[in-house]
Amino acid sequence: MINNNNTYTKKKSDVNTVSCRHGGDVYTKRIMKYADKIVDFSANINPLGMPDNVKNAIIENIDAYECYPDPFCRELRDAIAKVENTKPQNISCGNGAADIIYKLAWGLKPQKALLLAPTFSEYEQALNTVSCKVEYYNLKQENEFQLDEDILDCITDDIDIMFVCNPNNPTGIVTPKPLMKKILDQCKCCGAILIVDECFMDFVMDEEQYSISSMIESYDNLVIMKAFTKIYAMAGIRLGYMLCSNQNIIYSVNNASQSWSVSTVASKCGIAALNNSDYVNKTKQMIKQNREYLIIELNSLGFRTFDSSTNYILFYTDNVTIQTELEQYGVLIRNCDNYHNLKSGFYRIAVKSQKDNQYLIECIRKVVTE
Amino acid sequence: MINNNNTYTKKKSDVNTVSCRHGGDVYTKRIMKYADKIVDFSANINPLGMPDNVKNAIIENIDAYECYPDPFCRELRDAIAKVENTKPQNISCGNGAADIIYKLAWGLKPQKALLLAPTFSEYEQALNTVSCKVEYYNLKQENEFQLDEDILDCITDDIDIMFVCNPNNPTGIVTPKPLMKKILDQCKCCGAILIVDECFMDFVMDEEQYSISSMIESYDNLVIMKAFTKIYAMAGIRLGYMLCSNQNIIYSVNNASQSWSVSTVASKCGIAALNNSDYVNKTKQMIKQNREYLIIELNSLGFRTFDSSTNYILFYTDNVTIQTELEQYGVLIRNCDNYHNLKSGFYRIAVKSQKDNQYLIECIRKVVTE
Repeated sequence: MINNNNTYTKKKSDVNTVSCRHGGDVYTKRIMKYADKIVDFSANINPLGMPDNVKNAIIENIDAYECYPDPFCRELRDAIAKVENTKPQNISCGNGAADIIYKLAWGLKPQKALLLAPTFSEYEQALNTVSCKVEYYNLKQENEFQLDEDILDCITDDIDIMFVCNPNNPTGIVTPKPLMKKILDQCKCCGAILIVDECFMDFVMDEEQYSISSMIESYDNLVIMKAFTKIYAMAGIRLGYMLCSNQNIIYSVNNASQSWSVSTVASKCGIAALNNSDYVNKTKQMIKQNREYLIIELNSLGFRTFDSSTNYILFYTDNVTIQTELEQYGVLIRNCDNYHNLKSGFYRIAVKSQKDNQYLIECIRKVVTE
Repeated sequence: MINNNNTYTKKKSDVNTVSCRHGGDVYTKRIMKYADKIVDFSANINPLGMPDNVKNAIIENIDAYECYPDPFCRELRDAIAKVENTKPQNISCGNGAADIIYKLAWGLKPQKALLLAPTFSEYEQALNTVSCKVEYYNLKQENEFQLDEDILDCITDDIDIMFVCNPNNPTGIVTPKPLMKKILDQCKCCGAILIVDECFMDFVMDEEQYSISSMIESYDNLVIMKAFTKIYAMAGIRLGYMLCSNQNIIYSVNNASQSWSVSTVASKCGIAALNNSDYVNKTKQMIKQNREYLIIELNSLGFRTFDSSTNYILFYTDNVTIQTELEQYGVLIRNCDNYHNLKSGFYRIAVKSQKDNQYLIECIRKVVTE
């Protein structure tokens, strides 16, 4: 008999009344004083929008959606393998990168994990479901939330798994390859699996200085996570993947979930999306330029910003009503007070189009000067 | 340190070389002697195809796929609640019904389960991931694979969870409501949660004689699983849901996976699909008629069939090469030799359109008389 009180109760809750633990909640009905539409800065999605050939792929393949998806995602993995310069057998696909996180937890069932703080909260959420003990490495604000070499001392023999989000979410801070390699070596030495979440690496200029995805063939304890969600503005489609040369890990992850976690829609979109190198390059340039604009403007408004390399910016203000005030203008921003090691006053905004960014700054100016 | 040898190895495998453990594999490249296209009888999908308004919904909502899905599926759950005559809070949605099965396993972490044999294999696969012990109730061929009252003796205090697939897959045999109620009462008495998979109930005439979905409000140990996959021919879209009035179970299931397991595409399709009662009624009529045709023909060819109430038929033949021979005609059927309690020679075929069914019978006749 399952003990109701211990096994599956934390609190009773109607999901209708639970607030979203992430950004991107454009679905809650809101009455806004100065706007009739939402401009969502709380989710970090490519402002260029979904590439046209992805939209076309959705429509052209519509008859294919009647059949079950290919459980092995063969065509999709072949396409990813070419772009990632690896073998299809080193790839496992999922229903968004978030699905991969849970499959890693269930497939590997680690007992002790090391996480950065702050970082993307789904790692801990997933680890909780397998009762994994979690230790935190607290990133220091006075160090601009940069990852430091002292992280190596935290990677000890009792650590089974470590997640590093690079660039980190919500800080936008990127960790250079030499330190990533030291972390990887230390993990290897301690028998720990290193999961590097490079979901936002596609937005980073000179990503070859930071990404360690080419190291998967040399390290059997390395998993790289990537998503189509952000760079191709496909968040509502759900598609992510992991790269790993260790076939035991691939096997465990694949067997930790249903046979058809990747929809045919997602597969077809993914295959189309990978034919967009110009779009990716254009995105990087635009993000860099628009990010610089936002940082200058936020600083001039007296906000403390952090040195993001990707398509979102963490900032601090002691105006703790800014989020609700901006909502009156239809502007959603991500309140970061539910991250470990971030206090109230930290917010994350996406880097969007020039027009949207100007609107954000205008609204913030109004809120601040009111 | 995770022990590679114990924790996540069963066998090394390139997923490219693993054969599909279900039907519906239209993706493997085949050289066929007498055909240039596949007619797939191995997956049980509505032969009327995806309703037009679902296809329209995919296209009309294309701009919505750039945003993250609503993690709470509010609009979709409202729509389901109306059709199922229950409250939205009693509904949890997933990436296909298969996703719900895994979320139930992870959310509830049962230690001992009771399953029918044969039945849908994903229950056991999901239970394996949480190291749940599985006991089987062997359905008897001499009893036409009907579920019998002696099942009640197998529901003992040590059982945490029981799955009943109704109608059962792959037999197509339906269990009447009075016996289902006795099973439910016995589960309640023993503190077991009863999961009734009614994914194929939509194809059954007089389903009110079999479905116990209306009992969810009276039993806090009852979960009903439903899918859009089969009845609306949306298998490649992935959408399923569960009904349960016990908010602790709903909470545990929701928290056992990522925030965005249901894609926006699936949500929009689901909402559209529910406006198709004529289509569902038309399907039931057609399936009944076409099933009767197939059973008569299979019997006349000397095959042993079982009394299916839904859109697939289990049959037995001592011709154990029939599957590979039919493949030469482009016809895929489901070999059931990997089900518990089914020996070699059992096959499952979908009930498809009149034209496809006639083609199947023609091909079988050729194979048998060659």
